[in-house]
Amino acid sequence: MIDKHDLHKLCGGRPVAIVGAGLVGAGWAIVFARAGLHVKMFDANPEITRKAVPLIDTQLQGLHRHGLIDEAPAAVLARISAVDTLAQAVDGVAYVQESVLERVDVKRQLMVDLDALIAPDTIVGSSTSGIPGSAFALGLSISPRVLIAHPVNPPYLVPVVELVPSPETATRTVDVADALMRAVGQAVVHVRKEVEGFVLNRLQAVLLREAWALVQEGVASCEDVDKTVRDGLGWRWSFMGPFETIDLNAPGGVADYAVRLGPLYQRIADSRGHDTPWDADLIGHVEAQRREHLSHDDLEARRAWRDERLMEFAAARRTRDPRN
Amino acid sequence: MIDKHDLHKLCGGRPVAIVGAGLVGAGWAIVFARAGLHVKMFDANPEITRKAVPLIDTQLQGLHRHGLIDEAPAAVLARISAVDTLAQAVDGVAYVQESVLERVDVKRQLMVDLDALIAPDTIVGSSTSGIPGSAFALGLSISPRVLIAHPVNPPYLVPVVELVPSPETATRTVDVADALMRAVGQAVVHVRKEVEGFVLNRLQAVLLREAWALVQEGVASCEDVDKTVRDGLGWRWSFMGPFETIDLNAPGGVADYAVRLGPLYQRIADSRGHDTPWDADLIGHVEAQRREHLSHDDLEARRAWRDERLMEFAAARRTRDPRN
Repeated sequence: MIDKHDLHKLCGGRPVAIVGAGLVGAGWAIVFARAGLHVKMFDANPEITRKAVPLIDTQLQGLHRHGLIDEAPAAVLARISAVDTLAQAVDGVAYVQESVLERVDVKRQLMVDLDALIAPDTIVGSSTSGIPGSAFALGLSISPRVLIAHPVNPPYLVPVVELVPSPETATRTVDVADALMRAVGQAVVHVRKEVEGFVLNRLQAVLLREAWALVQEGVASCEDVDKTVRDGLGWRWSFMGPFETIDLNAPGGVADYAVRLGPLYQRIADSRGHDTPWDADLIGHVEAQRREHLSHDDLEARRAWRDERLMEFAAARRTRDPRN
Repeated sequence: MIDKHDLHKLCGGRPVAIVGAGLVGAGWAIVFARAGLHVKMFDANPEITRKAVPLIDTQLQGLHRHGLIDEAPAAVLARISAVDTLAQAVDGVAYVQESVLERVDVKRQLMVDLDALIAPDTIVGSSTSGIPGSAFALGLSISPRVLIAHPVNPPYLVPVVELVPSPETATRTVDVADALMRAVGQAVVHVRKEVEGFVLNRLQAVLLREAWALVQEGVASCEDVDKTVRDGLGWRWSFMGPFETIDLNAPGGVADYAVRLGPLYQRIADSRGHDTPWDADLIGHVEAQRREHLSHDDLEARRAWRDERLMEFAAARRTRDPRN
């Protein structure tokens, strides 16, 4: 739920900057503009910025069609302006969301540049999905004001954002980023230590590793693994998450569940080594199974189908759940 | 999608039997009766059978309210009859779904009893979530006609069912059970080997193990892990499953994704040992966190909330997706 009162308090009428205007940056621009903020968007490659504007327009049309924005798409788009330099982008902003290339040297150079440009109370969030702040955001005067704000794509539909401080990030920065993200309608997850993959990709990783191993051993096909989640596990997870699911699945709650099923899960874990790379053979095998269901030529159309479903899912959640 | 033509071909007008009338058995009774089949329900404890009927009635009212059954609840209920003996239950049936106590000796005794009672073409499905057919269904004249048909609770809402043959199960039995389950509207997953936890609980186990470890290490709270799935990962998984999700998440599809992210996921797997039991301390810690969000006294009310959401989810999927 977007909170304009909180937003005004946090930003004091100042705009936000989007640095890196690819798919992720464009998604963030929608999140902030939808909430009523003015957004300045910059990419070192002007071609990317130019492509971002029609992309954002198309996405806003979809959001409007599904009842996910009340304003006309053009009104939201009017709050987003593309600018030509990093200095213009960050001038006078309350917050910078960077979504530049996923490379340590590129992120580091950007931090050095921002160090020379931004106001002393501007906060910087990084969209990186895998590089900890320690690797690129230490030892600068802005370091206390930099943290990871890792979204899921597209952030204007899937609300989760992981906030990960580096050891030099100030507590106040985490608090302000938390308040800002909530005020623009995101669901904040606090990752308290810089573990590889943060929380979201660690959870995805372990499930995918087991899924691939089951296919490798001939226990189940890719399609049957997908069915198991899509027509089974995913139902509860999509509105409760794993802990609430098990808390409700044993008469006495989560502790009762742990005593009943903990030993089985330990045995399952023990039965599985981690020394199985996804080698070329296995990748070819999985690829062949997926292509039976969906040809390479149909990937793009199926992505459009997925995006429509995500919009429907977002619209249904907004109607049913006052939390969203 | 229920297919009455197929059903008639498969069962030839014969009823099905539910043996064990607890929560799982009662759920199965709804699945079969909803599809138009006559159901005979038996439990060794007559008290349990007596409780099952009003429980089924309540569930049918909910299904009707959410548009998930077209008939009046009373019409569906009229196809379910409670009987007093196992012999009555299985007399003349096409299929037996057993959901008795989750103990090898109890399951084995039931198989011996069924061996003396059922017709030579009756098939037996077991609801066990963890005991392989090898442990209780071998060496009998009915063994070629016994397999695991493991549901998610409640099966009349969450459609997935895992079919797991024992080494003695005939291929034809798997084919008939597959056709029957599809005809009554379930989503069939074929588990080709008797691995512990089958597919569904293995996938759940690895995700839960990582979730508990993240809480144990202070990386994230239970509530934040739940948010990561509920407001992030669970969105795509709930209508695509993990393989289709990654197939659409890299420009070149699943093989491209594997090359890009396989090494990260391998490192995440390598970073996690399996030798961390859920000991009393950790269980107490997780329990305390959950109870902050939901008191013990509110568990029951929250379960009712969950069941309403599952009905809404089922209704939404039926409207949107012709597959269901």
